[in-house]
Amino acid sequence: MTNTFGTSFKVTTWGESHGKAIGAVIDGCPAGLPLKESDIQSDLDRRKPGQSTITTDRKESDRVEILSGVFEGKTTGTPISLMIMNEDSDPKSYDHLKDVFRPGHADMAYFVKYGHRDHRGGGRSSGRETAARVAAGAIAKKIIDADIKAYAVQIGSIVAKKRDLEEIENNPVRSPDKDAAKKMVAEIEAAKAESDSIGGIIEIIVSAMHAGTGDPIFGKLDSLLAAALMSIGGVKGVEIGSGFSCAEMKGSAHNDQMNKEGFTSNNAGGIAGGISTGQDLIIRIAVKPTSSIGKKQKMISISGEETIIGIEGRHDPCLVPRIVPVAEAMVALVLADRR
Amino acid sequence: MTNTFGTSFKVTTWGESHGKAIGAVIDGCPAGLPLKESDIQSDLDRRKPGQSTITTDRKESDRVEILSGVFEGKTTGTPISLMIMNEDSDPKSYDHLKDVFRPGHADMAYFVKYGHRDHRGGGRSSGRETAARVAAGAIAKKIIDADIKAYAVQIGSIVAKKRDLEEIENNPVRSPDKDAAKKMVAEIEAAKAESDSIGGIIEIIVSAMHAGTGDPIFGKLDSLLAAALMSIGGVKGVEIGSGFSCAEMKGSAHNDQMNKEGFTSNNAGGIAGGISTGQDLIIRIAVKPTSSIGKKQKMISISGEETIIGIEGRHDPCLVPRIVPVAEAMVALVLADRR
Amino acid sequence: MTNTFGTSFKVTTWGESHGKAIGAVIDGCPAGLPLKESDIQSDLDRRKPGQSTITTDRKESDRVEILSGVFEGKTTGTPISLMIMNEDSDPKSYDHLKDVFRPGHADMAYFVKYGHRDHRGGGRSSGRETAARVAAGAIAKKIIDADIKAYAVQIGSIVAKKRDLEEIENNPVRSPDKDAAKKMVAEIEAAKAESDSIGGIIEIIVSAMHAGTGDPIFGKLDSLLAAALMSIGGVKGVEIGSGFSCAEMKGSAHNDQMNKEGFTSNNAGGIAGGISTGQDLIIRIAVKPTSSIGKKQKMISISGEETIIGIEGRHDPCLVPRIVPVAEAMVALVLADRR
Amino acid sequence: MTNTFGTSFKVTTWGESHGKAIGAVIDGCPAGLPLKESDIQSDLDRRKPGQSTITTDRKESDRVEILSGVFEGKTTGTPISLMIMNEDSDPKSYDHLKDVFRPGHADMAYFVKYGHRDHRGGGRSSGRETAARVAAGAIAKKIIDADIKAYAVQIGSIVAKKRDLEEIENNPVRSPDKDAAKKMVAEIEAAKAESDSIGGIIEIIVSAMHAGTGDPIFGKLDSLLAAALMSIGGVKGVEIGSGFSCAEMKGSAHNDQMNKEGFTSNNAGGIAGGISTGQDLIIRIAVKPTSSIGKKQKMISISGEETIIGIEGRHDPCLVPRIVPVAEAMVALVLADRR
Repeated sequence: MTNTFGTSFKVTTWGESHGKAIGAVIDGCPAGLPLKESDIQSDLDRRKPGQSTITTDRKESDRVEILSGVFEGKTTGTPISLMIMNEDSDPKSYDHLKDVFRPGHADMAYFVKYGHRDHRGGGRSSGRETAARVAAGAIAKKIIDADIKAYAVQIGSIVAKKRDLEEIENNPVRSPDKDAAKKMVAEIEAAKAESDSIGGIIEIIVSAMHAGTGDPIFGKLDSLLAAALMSIGGVKGVEIGSGFSCAEMKGSAHNDQMNKEGFTSNNAGGIAGGISTGQDLIIRIAVKPTSSIGKKQKMISISGEETIIGIEGRHDPCLVPRIVPVAEAMVALVLADRR
Repeated sequence: MTNTFGTSFKVTTWGESHGKAIGAVIDGCPAGLPLKESDIQSDLDRRKPGQSTITTDRKESDRVEILSGVFEGKTTGTPISLMIMNEDSDPKSYDHLKDVFRPGHADMAYFVKYGHRDHRGGGRSSGRETAARVAAGAIAKKIIDADIKAYAVQIGSIVAKKRDLEEIENNPVRSPDKDAAKKMVAEIEAAKAESDSIGGIIEIIVSAMHAGTGDPIFGKLDSLLAAALMSIGGVKGVEIGSGFSCAEMKGSAHNDQMNKEGFTSNNAGGIAGGISTGQDLIIRIAVKPTSSIGKKQKMISISGEETIIGIEGRHDPCLVPRIVPVAEAMVALVLADRR
Repeated sequence: MTNTFGTSFKVTTWGESHGKAIGAVIDGCPAGLPLKESDIQSDLDRRKPGQSTITTDRKESDRVEILSGVFEGKTTGTPISLMIMNEDSDPKSYDHLKDVFRPGHADMAYFVKYGHRDHRGGGRSSGRETAARVAAGAIAKKIIDADIKAYAVQIGSIVAKKRDLEEIENNPVRSPDKDAAKKMVAEIEAAKAESDSIGGIIEIIVSAMHAGTGDPIFGKLDSLLAAALMSIGGVKGVEIGSGFSCAEMKGSAHNDQMNKEGFTSNNAGGIAGGISTGQDLIIRIAVKPTSSIGKKQKMISISGEETIIGIEGRHDPCLVPRIVPVAEAMVALVLADRR
Repeated sequence: MTNTFGTSFKVTTWGESHGKAIGAVIDGCPAGLPLKESDIQSDLDRRKPGQSTITTDRKESDRVEILSGVFEGKTTGTPISLMIMNEDSDPKSYDHLKDVFRPGHADMAYFVKYGHRDHRGGGRSSGRETAARVAAGAIAKKIIDADIKAYAVQIGSIVAKKRDLEEIENNPVRSPDKDAAKKMVAEIEAAKAESDSIGGIIEIIVSAMHAGTGDPIFGKLDSLLAAALMSIGGVKGVEIGSGFSCAEMKGSAHNDQMNKEGFTSNNAGGIAGGISTGQDLIIRIAVKPTSSIGKKQKMISISGEETIIGIEGRHDPCLVPRIVPVAEAMVALVLADRR
C-alpha cells in the first residue's frame, strides 16, 4: 500500500507491466523550475529496454507525457502528473504462467497477500515500474545541487579496477573500467548462452554534497538511502563507505581523521551520525542475477502441483546496466526529499 | 526531526546521554496486552553497560518506568510512556571535548546542522539512545508471533562456523559458536589493550514468520528492515539472504526453487517482491569498530585548529555484543508496525 | 504540497482546470473489489457542469478512465490511477485575468506563495479539482458499509423544513424538501439575474455506521471530518450534531441519555470522544456564495494598481448543488481511510 | 492511535487523568531557541484547575519538567520531553463509575473500541490531556511570529458585544467584554446551582500573520485549523471568517474587495484557497455544555442495565474559560507546524 516515496518531495508511482500505462505523481516540487518532457526523457532512455544485445528486446519508446503541474514551461508547485504508455505489452505470452509461480519472483508472495493479481509479467512487481521512478528522479536531479553517478563495479567474477567516470556511458554494462567492461559483457553473454543470468554490484558516488543533510535517529541519511535502494527489485544488500569490510578493521584505521584541509579518508562514506559531512557519499548495492531464466527449474503451481518451468521470452540476462539509472533516481529522490 | 519509527506501531524516542533521562512513547500498541516493567527489563539488561570485561564500565541500572498506557496490568491502547533515568552520567568528563570534534563521531555533523548541541557523550547521537529502542522493542516482541534471534557471526578476523542458538547468551560476545566466541573475546581484548577497537558482523534470523508481511514498491519488508537496521549507529551495511555474495551467482543457483514440501533454498532471505514468503528472514549487518578509542588521532577543533586527541574513559572496545539486542529490537519494531 | 488525503486509503489528486487532464491515484484499496468505470461515472455525473439552468454551462462529459490497479474487473490492491480529460477548457477566456486577482478567489494567495501560477480558471485551485475527489469517493463508498447522504438544507434565506431523502435527486438544488427546493431555485435565479451569487448550508447524514470508528486525541472522527469537509473550496464552517446551537444549551439537555433501546437523542452527532457510537453521523457545512460574479468589484492587479472587474463567463450562481456529491465523497474518503 | 499532531513540528501527548503523569514529546523544534520551564508554566497556569469559583476544585499545580532537548538554556533540535506529574488524582472516587457509562462522555465509545480501559476520570479521554497540548503550544508560540488571542464571545444566552483584548485575562470567563463577562459568570453560577452546565462560543484572532501559510487541496490552513480545534473535547463546530452566516450572503457582499491599502473586509477570515492572505485569521468554535453534571440522568451500565446517575465531584460547570488557552495552543501548533 506504500506506493509513495518521500515526505516533502513525494513521488507516487502507479501502473502494471502489461496494463495501459504507468506513471508517477510528484507532489512537492517547488514552483518556477523550468521543466519539459525532454529533460526527463534522457534518463528514461538510459533505462529503457532494447538498448543493446545484453538487454531485453521488449520494445518500448518510454515517451513520457507531462499531464499537470507545468505551465508555460515552468513548474507551478502543484502536482506533476507523468504518464508513460505501455506500447509493447504482450499479455498473451504470459497466459501459460497464470497458474504457476516463477522461481525467484514475487508471484507467490503477491498471490498469498492479494489473492487476485495481475500475473502478466509480474504486473505491479515488474521492473517496468522503475521507469516511473526514473522519470521522477530526473526531476529530483534538477532541484538538488549534488551530482550523482552510478556504475557497475562488479558483474559475476569481474571486478572493475578503475573509476573512470567518463567511460561509464561508453559501454553497455555502464562500468567505469573500459577493460573490465569488455569482460563483464562476455560474462553476461556467457550466462545468456546458457539460458542463465548473472548478478553484480553497483557503486554510487554523490559529489558536491552539502554538509547537514539527514536527520538524527530514524531519519538518518544512510537509513533513508538504504531503504530507497533496497526498494529496487533484485537488490540484496546496501553498504555505505567501508561497508562490510569494516568488520575486520580497527577503530584507529576506520576513523576518518581531519586536518585543516579536511578529512584524510572517507570510511564513513560521507555520513556521520546520519548527517552528511560534506564528503562524497559512497554507496554500493548488490544486485542478484535475474530471476527470469530459460533454464528449467522446479516450482509449484497455484494448486500446489510440482512443475518444471523455463521462462522463455524477453529478459535481461543481467539487471545491473538497467538498474544503474534507477539507483541514481532513488538517491536523487532521497536528496530532493531532504533538501 | 525524525525521532519516530513506524506508522501503526509508532515509537518516538527522546533523551540525551548525559541529560536527566531517556525514554520512548509508543503509540499504537493494541489494548488488552498484559504488560509490566519486568517484561521490558530483561531486554534492557542485555543491552546495559557493564555486563562484562569487554563492555564499558559506565554503571547504569537502566530501570524502566511505565508512566502511562497500562491499567491494572494490561495495555489500554493509549500511548505507553517509558522513562529510564540517567544515573551514572558524568558530564564533567566531557568538558575537554566541548570544542573539539571526536574522529568517527557525529560531533561535527551535529555542530554544522544545529549549531547549539549537547556535546556530553555525544548527547542525542550517543548509543545510549538505543536503550529506548530496546525498551520499545521488548513490547513489540510481545505482539508479534515471529521469533527473532540476533548474534555475532564475525568479530575482526574471527568468523563463527556454527549456528548454535542456545549458545548465544552463554558468552559475552553473543556468538552462536562457542569456540569462535573465545577467539572473538581475545580479539576484542587485544584491541582494547592497544587502546583500539574492532568491528564485526551480526546475523539476525526471524523464524515462525507469516507469509504476506511487507508491501510492494516503497513499503517492501527488506526496505523497511534495511532502514531500521541502518538507523543504528555504527552500522555500515545491511544484506538480506544471499546478500553481496549474489553478485557472483547465476540465476539458476540463486533462484529458490520449490517442491511440495516448500522452498529448497533461501537465497531470498525470506522475502520476495518485498513480501515475506513464510521462510525464515535472514539478515546481516556490518558494525564498524567503535569510534571512541584511547589512541591518539588527528582532528580539528570548532575553531578549525588541528589537534591530537585520545578519548579516555568509558567505551566499549567492540559494539557488536551490545548491538545484538538493539538489532533484535529494530526488527521487532518493523514487524510490529506491519502486522 | 499536500495533495494526498488519508493514510491507509490514500488519494492523491492532480491537475488543473484548463490543463490536459485531471486525475487521482488511490493507494490502499483492497484487492478483489469489483470495479468498472461506470461505477465511478454515476457520481461524477452528479457533480459535472451543465446539469441544469442553475449550474455553469461549461461542457465536460467528465468521462473517467481507469489506467491501473484493476485486472479482469477486480482491483488488485495496487494503485488505481484515474484520469479525466479536460474537454471544454477555454484558456483564452482567462487572458484578461492574467494580471489581476479575482475577488474572493485564491489568485493572490497562490501568486504570493508560488510566484509562477496557472491562472486559467484558477488552475489548481479551481473547483474542477473536486471531480477527482468524487471519482475516488465513488470507490471509497464501495468499500464502506455506511450509507452517506448529503443535501441542501439552506440556500440564502430559504430553509428546508423536511428531510425527505427520496426527494433529493429530484430537484436541481438537491434539497430533501420539495417545496423549499422550488424557492431555493428561485433564490438562485434571482441572484443570477443580478449577476450575483448566493450561499447555503449542506447537511450530511451517515447511517448504518459502525461503533468504534475514529481514534482518540488527534485522530478523532469529528476532527477528520472537519478537515476533510473544510478542504472543499468555499466551505466556511463545519458542525457536528448540535453544532453551534450547543452554546445556548444546558448539559442536562445536551447529553444524549440511554435506555435499553439505545440513545434517546443525538446531540453528539454520532461521535463521542472522537469515536463513532453507532448512531447516525450528523454534519453540516456552510457554503459561501460563489466568488465569480458578473457584478463589478474593486480589486488590485499584480502590479498593485486598483482596478474594477466583473467575471463574465461560465460560473455556478450557487455552489451548493454541485458540492453535495463532493461532500459525500469527502465523508466516504474519511470512512474508507479509517475502516 | 493518533496521539501525534503535526508533520514538521510534531507533538505527541501521553498520559491519563489519574495515572502517574501526563506529558508531551516535541520533535522538530529548531535548535537555539531559549527555553526554560517558566516559559511554559504561564500558559499552563491559565489552563490549570482551581483558578476561580467557576472552575473545578481539583488541585493540580501542573508543574512542567523539561527532561530532554534543552542544553544550557537553549533547544538543541532534539526531542523536547515534557512531563507533568498528576498530584491530586483521586481514582477511588471513580470506583462507582467503573461499570457505568457517563452520559455525554467517551466512556462507552472507548469500551466498545478498546475493551480494556482506564475509566478513572475518563482516563485518556479526560480534558486533563489538554495540559500537555498547552505545554507544547507554549513552545510553538515562541517560534511563530503571529500573535494568537482566544476569548469567550458567548456563554449560554450572553453574547459579548465588545472586543477589548486587554480585558480578557481580567475576568474569570476570559471575555473581551467586561459587562458581558459579569453576566456570563452569573449564567454559569446559575447552571452550577442547578447541578447543571452551560455551553458557549470562543473566538480566536491571529494577528501579524504572514501571507502564504497553508497548502492547497488537503493541507489548507482552514482545514488544518478545523481539525486542530475539533480535536479538543467538547468542540462541536468550527467556522472561519463569515462562517455559517455566509449561507445568507450574496457574493457581492461576501467577496473581500481590495484597494491600494489592502482588503476592505475580511469575510474570508484571512484565508483564501487554503492559504493565508496576510489578514487576521478569524475563527470561532462552539463548546458544548460540560457532560459531567450532578443532575440525575438515564444511562446504561456495561452489562446493559438501565440506571440513573448523577456525577458528583469536581467538574467545571462551563468548559469555555479553560478551553481558551487550549484553543490558542492548537492554533499555535498548526502555525508552528506550517511555518
